Amino acid sequence: MTGWVKIAGLGPGDEALVTPEVTAALAQATDVVGYIPYVARVADRAGLTLHASDNRVEIDRSQHALQMASEGKRVVVVSSGDPGVFAMAAAVFEAMENGPIEWRDIPVDVLPGITAMLAASARAGAPLGHDFCAINLSDNLKPWSLIEKRLRLAAQGDFAMAFYNPRSKSRPEGFVKTLEILREECEPERLILFARAVSRANEAIRISTLAEATPEMADMQTVVIVGSSLTRVIEREGAPIVYTPRFTLAEGQE
Amino acid sequence: MTGWVKIAGLGPGDEALVTPEVTAALAQATDVVGYIPYVARVADRAGLTLHASDNRVEIDRSQHALQMASEGKRVVVVSSGDPGVFAMAAAVFEAMENGPIEWRDIPVDVLPGITAMLAASARAGAPLGHDFCAINLSDNLKPWSLIEKRLRLAAQGDFAMAFYNPRSKSRPEGFVKTLEILREECEPERLILFARAVSRANEAIRISTLAEATPEMADMQTVVIVGSSLTRVIEREGAPIVYTPRFTLAEGQE
Repeated sequence: MTGWVKIAGLGPGDEALVTPEVTAALAQATDVVGYIPYVARVADRAGLTLHASDNRVEIDRSQHALQMASEGKRVVVVSSGDPGVFAMAAAVFEAMENGPIEWRDIPVDVLPGITAMLAASARAGAPLGHDFCAINLSDNLKPWSLIEKRLRLAAQGDFAMAFYNPRSKSRPEGFVKTLEILREECEPERLILFARAVSRANEAIRISTLAEATPEMADMQTVVIVGSSLTRVIEREGAPIVYTPRFTLAEGQE
Repeated sequence: MTGWVKIAGLGPGDEALVTPEVTAALAQATDVVGYIPYVARVADRAGLTLHASDNRVEIDRSQHALQMASEGKRVVVVSSGDPGVFAMAAAVFEAMENGPIEWRDIPVDVLPGITAMLAASARAGAPLGHDFCAINLSDNLKPWSLIEKRLRLAAQGDFAMAFYNPRSKSRPEGFVKTLEILREECEPERLILFARAVSRANEAIRISTLAEATPEMADMQTVVIVGSSLTRVIEREGAPIVYTPRFTLAEGQE
Protein backbone atom coordinates (compact mmCIF):
# COMPACT_ATOMS: atom_id res chain seq x y z
CA MET A 1 0.00 0.00 0.00
CA THR A 2 1.41 3.38 -1.00
CA GLY A 3 -1.56 5.48 0.07
CA TRP A 4 -1.50 7.90 2.93
CA VAL A 5 -3.48 10.63 4.64
CA LYS A 6 -1.98 13.93 5.71
CA ILE A 7 -4.22 16.21 7.75
CA ALA A 8 -2.90 19.65 6.95
CA GLY A 9 -3.41 23.07 8.48
CA LEU A 10 -3.65 25.88 5.92
CA GLY A 11 -3.35 28.62 8.52
CA PRO A 12 -5.77 31.54 8.81
CA GLY A 13 -5.84 32.59 5.15
CA ASP A 14 -2.68 34.34 4.03
CA GLU A 15 -0.55 32.06 1.84
CA ALA A 16 2.58 33.46 3.56
CA LEU A 17 1.39 31.63 6.69
CA VAL A 18 1.23 28.17 5.04
CA THR A 19 4.22 26.07 6.12
CA PRO A 20 6.54 24.55 3.47
CA GLU A 21 5.63 21.14 4.91
CA VAL A 22 1.99 21.65 3.95
CA THR A 23 2.89 23.06 0.53
CA ALA A 24 5.03 19.96 -0.14
CA ALA A 25 2.22 17.61 0.92
CA LEU A 26 -0.22 19.32 -1.43
CA ALA A 27 2.31 18.96 -4.27
CA GLN A 28 2.45 15.17 -3.67
CA ALA A 29 -1.29 14.62 -3.25
CA THR A 30 -3.61 12.82 -5.63
CA ASP A 31 -6.71 13.93 -3.72
CA VAL A 32 -7.67 16.80 -1.47
CA VAL A 33 -10.75 16.68 0.76
CA GLY A 34 -12.22 19.35 2.98
CA TYR A 35 -14.84 21.96 3.66
CA ILE A 36 -15.66 23.99 0.53
CA PRO A 37 -13.87 27.29 1.36
CA TYR A 38 -10.69 25.48 2.44
CA VAL A 39 -10.51 23.26 -0.65
CA ALA A 40 -11.01 26.44 -2.70
CA ARG A 41 -7.61 27.61 -1.40
CA VAL A 42 -5.83 24.67 -3.10
CA ALA A 43 -4.70 25.30 -6.69
CA ASP A 44 -6.07 22.77 -9.15
CA ARG A 45 -3.56 20.89 -11.30
CA ALA A 46 -3.32 17.79 -13.51
CA GLY A 47 -3.34 14.61 -11.42
CA LEU A 48 -5.12 16.22 -8.47
CA THR A 49 -8.77 15.66 -7.64
CA LEU A 50 -10.46 18.15 -5.34
CA HIS A 51 -13.31 16.86 -3.16
CA ALA A 52 -15.09 19.79 -1.51
CA SER A 53 -17.86 19.02 0.96
CA ASP A 54 -20.21 20.98 3.15
CA ASN A 55 -19.78 21.81 6.80
CA ARG A 56 -20.89 19.31 9.48
CA VAL A 57 -19.99 16.21 7.48
CA GLU A 58 -16.60 15.76 9.14
CA ILE A 59 -16.96 12.02 9.69
CA ASP A 60 -18.17 11.31 6.14
CA ARG A 61 -15.24 13.31 4.82
CA SER A 62 -12.80 11.47 7.08
CA GLN A 63 -14.13 8.06 6.01
CA HIS A 64 -13.80 9.12 2.39
CA ALA A 65 -10.18 10.17 2.95
CA LEU A 66 -9.27 6.92 4.71
CA GLN A 67 -11.08 4.83 2.09
CA MET A 68 -9.21 6.53 -0.76
CA ALA A 69 -5.89 6.10 1.07
CA SER A 70 -6.63 2.40 1.57
CA GLU A 71 -6.96 2.21 -2.23
CA GLY A 72 -3.51 3.75 -2.69
CA LYS A 73 -4.36 7.44 -3.02
CA ARG A 74 -2.27 10.17 -1.44
CA VAL A 75 -4.89 12.22 0.36
CA VAL A 76 -4.54 15.61 2.01
CA VAL A 77 -7.37 16.59 4.37
CA VAL A 78 -7.32 20.37 4.60
CA SER A 79 -8.36 22.42 7.61
CA SER A 80 -7.98 26.11 8.16
CA GLY A 81 -5.70 27.06 11.01
CA ASP A 82 -4.22 24.06 12.79
CA PRO A 83 -5.90 20.70 12.13
CA GLY A 84 -5.57 19.70 15.80
CA VAL A 85 -7.48 22.71 17.18
CA PHE A 86 -11.25 22.28 16.72
CA ALA A 87 -10.66 20.96 13.21
CA MET A 88 -10.28 17.79 11.17
CA ALA A 89 -7.60 15.77 13.00
CA ALA A 90 -9.86 14.47 15.77
CA ALA A 91 -12.55 13.61 13.21
CA VAL A 92 -10.16 11.54 11.10
CA PHE A 93 -8.97 9.60 14.15
CA GLU A 94 -12.55 9.04 15.27
CA ALA A 95 -13.32 7.61 11.83
CA MET A 96 -10.19 5.47 11.95
CA GLU A 97 -11.00 4.06 15.38
CA ASN A 98 -14.56 3.19 14.39
CA GLY A 99 -13.71 1.97 10.88
CA PRO A 100 -12.35 -1.28 9.43
CA ILE A 101 -9.34 -2.56 11.36
CA GLU A 102 -7.22 -2.31 8.19
CA TRP A 103 -7.54 1.46 8.30
CA ARG A 104 -5.17 1.48 11.29
CA ASP A 105 -2.37 0.48 8.92
CA ILE A 106 -2.78 3.63 6.83
CA PRO A 107 0.04 6.13 7.41
CA VAL A 108 -1.64 9.24 8.82
CA ASP A 109 0.29 12.39 9.64
CA VAL A 110 -0.93 15.65 11.10
CA LEU A 111 0.81 18.72 9.64
CA PRO A 112 0.45 21.64 12.05
CA GLY A 113 -0.60 25.10 10.96
CA ILE A 114 -0.98 28.61 12.35
CA THR A 115 -4.16 28.41 14.39
CA ALA A 116 -6.58 31.35 14.38
CA MET A 117 -6.07 32.42 17.99
CA LEU A 118 -2.30 32.75 17.54
CA ALA A 119 -2.67 34.66 14.27
CA ALA A 120 -5.16 36.95 16.01
CA SER A 121 -2.93 37.33 19.05
CA ALA A 122 0.02 38.26 16.81
CA ARG A 123 -2.01 40.93 15.04
CA ALA A 124 -3.12 42.52 18.32
CA GLY A 125 0.22 42.25 20.11
CA ALA A 126 0.53 39.42 22.63
CA PRO A 127 -2.76 39.03 24.52
CA LEU A 128 -2.04 35.30 24.97
CA GLY A 129 1.44 36.04 26.32
CA HIS A 130 0.70 34.26 29.57
CA ASP A 131 -1.31 31.18 30.63
CA PHE A 132 -4.44 30.82 28.50
CA CYS A 133 -7.33 28.53 27.53
CA ALA A 134 -8.85 27.73 24.15
CA ILE A 135 -12.58 27.04 24.27
CA ASN A 136 -14.93 26.10 21.44
CA LEU A 137 -18.20 27.91 22.17
CA SER A 138 -20.26 25.72 19.85
CA ASP A 139 -22.66 23.47 21.72
CA ASN A 140 -23.25 21.19 18.76
CA LEU A 141 -21.08 18.47 20.29
CA LYS A 142 -21.08 19.25 24.00
CA PRO A 143 -23.68 20.46 26.48
CA TRP A 144 -23.92 24.16 27.21
CA SER A 145 -23.50 23.40 30.93
CA LEU A 146 -19.95 22.21 30.27
CA ILE A 147 -19.13 25.38 28.32
CA GLU A 148 -20.44 27.49 31.18
CA LYS A 149 -18.45 25.49 33.73
CA ARG A 150 -15.25 25.92 31.75
CA LEU A 151 -15.81 29.64 31.26
CA ARG A 152 -16.25 30.18 34.99
CA LEU A 153 -13.24 28.07 35.97
CA ALA A 154 -11.03 29.74 33.35
CA ALA A 155 -12.08 33.18 34.63
CA GLN A 156 -11.50 32.14 38.25
CA GLY A 157 -8.03 30.94 37.28
CA ASP A 158 -7.37 34.33 35.63
CA PHE A 159 -6.44 32.64 32.37
CA ALA A 160 -6.57 34.63 29.17
CA MET A 161 -9.09 32.91 26.88
CA ALA A 162 -9.56 32.37 23.17
CA PHE A 163 -12.98 31.41 21.84
CA TYR A 164 -13.51 29.54 18.57
CA ASN A 165 -16.91 29.41 16.86
CA PRO A 166 -18.27 32.10 19.15
CA ARG A 167 -21.56 32.81 17.46
CA SER A 168 -23.43 30.70 14.95
CA LYS A 169 -26.42 31.96 13.01
CA SER A 170 -28.56 29.11 14.28
CA ARG A 171 -27.68 29.55 17.97
CA PRO A 172 -26.70 33.17 18.58
CA GLU A 173 -27.80 33.00 22.24
CA GLY A 174 -24.64 31.14 23.30
CA PHE A 175 -22.42 34.15 22.94
CA VAL A 176 -24.98 36.35 24.72
CA LYS A 177 -24.73 33.96 27.68
CA THR A 178 -20.93 33.88 27.40
CA LEU A 179 -20.71 37.65 27.83
CA GLU A 180 -23.12 37.48 30.80
CA ILE A 181 -21.00 34.83 32.51
CA LEU A 182 -17.79 36.76 31.92
CA ARG A 183 -19.36 39.92 33.34
CA GLU A 184 -20.28 37.98 36.47
CA GLU A 185 -16.76 36.61 36.88
CA CYS A 186 -14.55 39.50 35.70
CA GLU A 187 -14.28 43.26 36.17
CA PRO A 188 -16.02 45.53 33.59
CA GLU A 189 -12.71 46.90 32.29
CA ARG A 190 -11.50 43.45 31.25
CA LEU A 191 -10.18 43.62 27.68
CA ILE A 192 -11.88 41.62 24.96
CA LEU A 193 -10.72 41.43 21.34
CA PHE A 194 -12.75 40.53 18.29
CA ALA A 195 -10.48 39.37 15.48
CA ARG A 196 -12.31 38.72 12.23
CA ALA A 197 -10.85 37.16 9.08
CA VAL A 198 -7.29 37.52 10.35
CA SER A 199 -4.66 37.77 7.58
CA ARG A 200 -7.34 38.02 4.89
CA ALA A 201 -8.33 41.06 2.85
CA ASN A 202 -11.31 41.84 5.08
CA GLU A 203 -9.40 41.52 8.37
CA ALA A 204 -10.85 43.57 11.22
CA ILE A 205 -9.51 43.73 14.78
CA ARG A 206 -11.65 45.41 17.39
CA ILE A 207 -10.56 46.08 20.96
CA SER A 208 -13.29 46.46 23.56
CA THR A 209 -14.04 45.81 27.23
CA LEU A 210 -16.55 43.46 28.81
CA ALA A 211 -18.64 46.48 29.78
CA GLU A 212 -18.87 47.69 26.19
CA ALA A 213 -18.83 44.44 24.22
CA THR A 214 -21.99 43.40 22.39
CA PRO A 215 -22.82 39.97 20.96
CA GLU A 216 -22.95 41.40 17.42
CA MET A 217 -19.22 42.07 17.53
CA ALA A 218 -18.65 38.33 16.88
CA ASP A 219 -19.64 35.96 14.13
CA MET A 220 -18.39 32.54 13.01
CA GLN A 221 -15.42 34.11 11.22
CA THR A 222 -14.32 35.77 14.45
CA VAL A 223 -11.91 34.57 17.09
CA VAL A 224 -12.58 36.25 20.41
CA ILE A 225 -9.76 36.76 22.90
CA VAL A 226 -10.43 37.77 26.50
CA GLY A 227 -7.44 39.05 28.42
CA SER A 228 -6.42 38.09 31.94
CA SER A 229 -6.79 40.68 34.70
CA LEU A 230 -3.25 41.86 33.84
CA THR A 231 -3.70 42.35 30.09
CA ARG A 232 -2.75 45.89 29.08
CA VAL A 233 -3.05 48.32 26.18
CA ILE A 234 -0.24 50.47 24.81
CA GLU A 235 -1.77 53.48 23.09
CA ARG A 236 0.12 54.89 20.12
CA GLU A 237 -0.36 56.26 16.61
CA GLY A 238 -2.40 53.78 14.64
CA ALA A 239 -3.60 50.53 16.18
CA PRO A 240 -2.96 50.13 19.90
CA ILE A 241 -1.04 47.09 21.16
CA VAL A 242 -2.64 44.62 23.57
CA TYR A 243 -0.40 42.35 25.58
CA THR A 244 -0.40 40.18 28.67
CA PRO A 245 2.75 40.57 30.76
CA ARG A 246 5.01 37.59 31.33
CA PHE A 247 5.03 38.10 35.09
CA THR A 248 2.48 38.30 37.86
CA LEU A 249 4.79 38.63 40.87
CA ALA A 250 4.64 42.42 40.91
CA GLU A 251 0.89 42.22 41.30
CA GLY A 252 1.21 40.33 44.58
CA GLN A 253 -1.42 37.77 43.62
CA GLU A 254 -2.07 35.38 46.46
CA MET B 1 12.62 56.40 10.09
CA THR B 2 12.79 53.19 8.10
CA GLY B 3 13.59 50.87 10.97
CA TRP B 4 11.27 48.21 12.25
CA VAL B 5 11.03 45.23 14.58
CA LYS B 6 9.49 41.93 13.59
CA ILE B 7 9.09 39.38 16.38
CA ALA B 8 9.22 36.09 14.54
CA GLY B 9 8.38 32.51 15.48
CA LEU B 10 10.81 29.95 14.06
CA GLY B 11 8.58 26.99 14.95
CA PRO B 12 9.78 23.95 16.88
CA GLY B 13 12.95 23.24 14.89
CA ASP B 14 12.27 21.75 11.46
CA GLU B 15 12.85 24.31 8.72
CA ALA B 16 9.78 22.94 6.89
CA LEU B 17 7.71 24.41 9.73
CA VAL B 18 9.00 27.98 9.28
CA THR B 19 6.39 30.13 7.54
CA PRO B 20 7.28 31.98 4.32
CA GLU B 21 6.40 35.21 6.14
CA VAL B 22 9.20 34.60 8.64
CA THR B 23 11.65 33.57 5.93
CA ALA B 24 10.91 36.80 4.05
CA ALA B 25 11.43 38.90 7.18
CA LEU B 26 14.81 37.30 7.83
CA ALA B 27 15.80 38.03 4.21
CA GLN B 28 15.04 41.75 4.75
CA ALA B 29 16.66 42.07 8.17
CA THR B 30 19.84 43.98 8.98
CA ASP B 31 19.96 42.55 12.51
CA VAL B 32 18.72 39.45 14.28
CA VAL B 33 18.53 39.21 18.06
CA GLY B 34 17.57 36.29 20.25
CA TYR B 35 18.56 33.50 22.58
CA ILE B 36 21.74 31.73 21.42
CA PRO B 37 20.23 28.46 20.06
CA TYR B 38 17.52 30.31 18.13
CA VAL B 39 19.90 32.81 16.53
CA ALA B 40 22.05 29.81 15.57
CA ARG B 41 19.19 28.68 13.30
CA VAL B 42 19.49 31.83 11.17
CA ALA B 43 21.93 31.59 8.24
CA ASP B 44 24.61 34.25 8.29
CA ARG B 45 24.98 36.44 5.20
CA ALA B 46 26.54 39.71 4.10
CA GLY B 47 24.64 42.70 5.50
CA LEU B 48 23.20 40.76 8.44
CA THR B 49 24.46 41.06 12.01
CA LEU B 50 23.55 38.30 14.43
CA HIS B 51 23.20 39.26 18.11
CA ALA B 52 22.92 36.12 20.22
CA SER B 53 22.30 36.53 23.93
CA ASP B 54 21.84 34.27 26.91
CA ASN B 55 18.57 33.16 28.43
CA ARG B 56 16.80 35.34 31.02
CA VAL B 57 17.85 38.65 29.46
CA GLU B 58 14.62 39.11 27.55
CA ILE B 59 14.15 42.77 28.49
CA ASP B 60 17.77 43.73 27.67
CA ARG B 61 17.39 42.00 24.31
CA SER B 62 14.07 43.75 23.65
CA GLN B 63 15.52 47.16 24.48
CA HIS B 64 18.45 46.44 22.18
CA ALA B 65 16.07 45.52 19.34
CA LEU B 66 13.94 48.66 19.81
CA GLN B 67 17.01 50.88 20.11
CA MET B 68 18.46 49.51 16.86
CA ALA B 69 15.12 49.94 15.08
CA SER B 70 14.93 53.56 16.31
CA GLU B 71 18.29 54.07 14.57
CA GLY B 72 16.90 52.74 11.29
CA LYS B 73 17.80 49.06 11.49
CA ARG B 74 15.47 46.30 10.35
CA VAL B 75 15.48 43.98 13.33
CA VAL B 76 14.06 40.47 13.62
CA VAL B 77 13.67 39.16 17.17
CA VAL B 78 13.62 35.37 16.92
CA SER B 79 11.75 33.01 19.22
CA SER B 80 11.27 29.30 18.88
CA GLY B 81 7.69 28.20 18.40
CA ASP B 82 5.25 31.13 18.37
CA PRO B 83 6.55 34.45 19.73
CA GLY B 84 3.24 35.12 21.50
CA VAL B 85 3.26 31.92 23.58
CA PHE B 86 5.65 32.20 26.53
CA ALA B 87 8.21 33.83 24.27
CA MET B 88 9.58 37.20 23.16
CA ALA B 89 6.50 39.18 22.06
CA ALA B 90 5.34 40.12 25.56
CA ALA B 91 8.90 41.07 26.53
CA VAL B 92 9.28 43.44 23.57
CA PHE B 93 5.97 45.15 24.38
CA GLU B 94 6.94 45.43 28.03
CA ALA B 95 10.19 47.13 26.97
CA MET B 96 8.29 49.40 24.59
CA GLU B 97 5.77 50.45 27.24
CA ASN B 98 8.50 51.24 29.78
CA GLY B 99 10.94 52.79 27.28
CA PRO B 100 11.26 56.24 25.65
CA ILE B 101 7.94 57.48 24.27
CA GLU B 102 9.47 57.62 20.76
CA TRP B 103 9.73 53.83 20.75
CA ARG B 104 5.93 53.67 20.36
CA ASP B 105 6.37 55.02 16.83
CA ILE B 106 8.49 52.04 15.77
CA PRO B 107 6.61 49.64 13.51
CA VAL B 108 6.47 46.36 15.39
CA ASP B 109 4.90 43.22 13.93
CA VAL B 110 4.47 39.79 15.46
CA LEU B 111 4.91 36.95 12.95
CA PRO B 112 3.23 33.81 14.28
CA GLY B 113 4.88 30.41 14.26
CA ILE B 114 4.09 26.79 15.01
CA THR B 115 4.09 26.64 18.80
CA ALA B 116 5.55 23.61 20.56
CA MET B 117 2.29 22.25 21.96
CA LEU B 118 0.65 22.14 18.53
CA ALA B 119 3.68 20.51 16.92
CA ALA B 120 3.68 17.96 19.74
CA SER B 121 -0.05 17.42 19.47
CA ALA B 122 0.28 16.83 15.72
CA ARG B 123 2.99 14.23 16.23
CA ALA B 124 0.91 12.32 18.78
CA GLY B 125 -2.43 12.58 16.95
CA ALA B 126 -4.84 15.18 18.29
CA PRO B 127 -4.67 15.26 22.11
CA LEU B 128 -5.61 18.97 22.08
CA GLY B 129 -8.58 18.26 19.81
CA HIS B 130 -11.01 19.71 22.32
CA ASP B 131 -10.95 22.59 24.85
CA PHE B 132 -7.50 23.00 26.37
CA CYS B 133 -5.23 25.21 28.48
CA ALA B 134 -1.61 26.23 28.02
CA ILE B 135 0.28 26.74 31.29
CA ASN B 136 3.88 27.81 31.83
CA LEU B 137 5.12 25.79 34.81
CA SER B 138 8.08 28.07 35.47
CA ASP B 139 7.71 30.01 38.71
CA ASN B 140 10.40 32.53 37.82
CA LEU B 141 7.81 35.19 37.05
CA LYS B 142 4.72 34.08 38.97
CA PRO B 143 4.11 32.53 42.39
CA TRP B 144 3.81 28.76 42.63
CA SER B 145 0.42 29.21 44.35
CA LEU B 146 -1.00 30.63 41.13
CA ILE B 147 0.34 27.71 39.09
CA GLU B 148 -1.25 25.27 41.54
CA LYS B 149 -4.56 27.13 41.41
CA ARG B 150 -4.59 27.05 37.62
CA LEU B 151 -3.70 23.36 37.51
CA ARG B 152 -6.58 22.46 39.83
CA LEU B 153 -9.14 24.62 38.01
CA ALA B 154 -8.05 23.30 34.61
CA ALA B 155 -8.38 19.73 35.88
CA GLN B 156 -11.79 20.47 37.42
CA GLY B 157 -12.91 21.91 34.08
CA ASP B 158 -11.72 18.72 32.35
CA PHE B 159 -9.57 20.73 29.97
CA ALA B 160 -6.71 19.03 28.20
CA MET B 161 -3.52 20.82 29.22
CA ALA B 162 -0.18 21.67 27.68
CA PHE B 163 2.74 22.57 29.92
CA TYR B 164 5.67 24.71 28.80
CA ASN B 165 8.96 24.81 30.74
CA PRO B 166 7.90 21.85 32.87
CA ARG B 167 11.14 21.16 34.66
CA SER B 168 14.16 23.39 35.07
CA LYS B 169 17.46 22.14 36.44
CA SER B 170 17.42 24.77 39.15
CA ARG B 171 13.86 24.04 40.35
CA PRO B 172 12.98 20.44 39.54
CA GLU B 173 10.51 20.23 42.43
CA GLY B 174 7.82 22.14 40.53
CA PHE B 175 7.05 19.28 38.20
CA VAL B 176 7.05 16.81 41.11
CA LYS B 177 4.32 18.93 42.69
CA THR B 178 2.50 19.23 39.36
CA LEU B 179 2.20 15.46 39.07
CA GLU B 180 1.00 15.24 42.69
CA ILE B 181 -1.70 17.84 42.08
CA LEU B 182 -2.86 16.14 38.90
CA ARG B 183 -3.05 12.78 40.71
CA GLU B 184 -5.28 14.39 43.33
CA GLU B 185 -7.58 15.90 40.71
CA CYS B 186 -7.64 13.22 37.96
CA GLU B 187 -7.99 9.45 37.65
CA PRO B 188 -4.79 7.34 37.52
CA GLU B 189 -5.43 6.26 33.92
CA ARG B 190 -5.35 9.85 32.67
CA LEU B 191 -3.08 10.05 29.63
CA ILE B 192 0.03 12.19 29.76
CA LEU B 193 2.44 12.76 26.87
CA PHE B 194 6.04 13.83 27.02
CA ALA B 195 7.12 15.34 23.71
CA ARG B 196 10.81 16.18 23.58
CA ALA B 197 12.59 18.10 20.79
CA VAL B 198 9.62 17.77 18.45
CA SER B 199 10.52 17.91 14.74
CA ARG B 200 14.24 17.78 15.51
CA ALA B 201 16.66 14.88 14.99
CA ASN B 202 16.42 13.76 18.60
CA GLU B 203 12.61 13.89 18.80
CA ALA B 204 11.10 11.54 21.36
CA ILE B 205 7.40 11.12 22.14
CA ARG B 206 6.46 9.10 25.21
CA ILE B 207 2.90 8.19 26.12
CA SER B 208 2.20 7.43 29.77
CA THR B 209 -0.49 7.72 32.42
CA LEU B 210 -0.59 9.80 35.57
CA ALA B 211 -0.12 6.60 37.60
CA GLU B 212 3.07 5.71 35.77
CA ALA B 213 4.56 9.12 34.95
CA THR B 214 7.74 10.16 36.73
CA PRO B 215 9.23 13.66 36.96
CA GLU B 216 12.33 12.54 35.07
CA MET B 217 10.25 12.05 31.92
CA ALA B 218 10.31 15.85 31.43
CA ASP B 219 13.06 18.42 31.00
CA MET B 220 13.16 21.97 29.65
CA GLN B 221 13.12 20.70 26.05
CA THR B 222 9.89 18.82 26.71
CA VAL B 223 6.32 19.91 26.20
CA VAL B 224 3.96 17.91 28.39
CA ILE B 225 0.37 17.32 27.32
CA VAL B 226 -2.24 15.97 29.72
CA GLY B 227 -5.41 14.66 28.13
CA SER B 228 -8.96 15.35 29.24
CA SER B 229 -10.96 12.51 30.79
CA LEU B 230 -12.08 11.57 27.26
CA THR B 231 -8.66 11.42 25.59
CA ARG B 232 -8.15 8.03 23.93
CA VAL B 233 -5.45 5.85 22.43
CA ILE B 234 -5.72 3.98 19.13
CA GLU B 235 -3.31 1.06 19.23
CA ARG B 236 -1.77 0.01 15.93
CA GLU B 237 1.50 -1.07 14.34
CA GLY B 238 4.15 1.48 15.22
CA ALA B 239 3.36 4.51 17.33
CA PRO B 240 -0.15 4.62 18.82
CA ILE B 241 -2.38 7.61 18.15
CA VAL B 242 -3.65 9.78 21.00
CA TYR B 243 -6.67 11.97 20.40
CA THR B 244 -9.37 13.85 22.25
CA PRO B 245 -12.81 13.44 20.68
CA ARG B 246 -14.65 16.44 19.35
CA PHE B 247 -17.80 15.62 21.30
CA THR B 248 -18.76 15.04 24.92
CA LEU B 249 -22.51 14.55 24.55
CA ALA B 250 -22.29 10.77 24.29
CA GLU B 251 -20.56 10.69 27.66
CA GLY B 252 -23.56 12.29 29.35
CA GLN B 253 -21.46 14.78 31.26
CA GLU B 254 -23.58 16.87 33.60
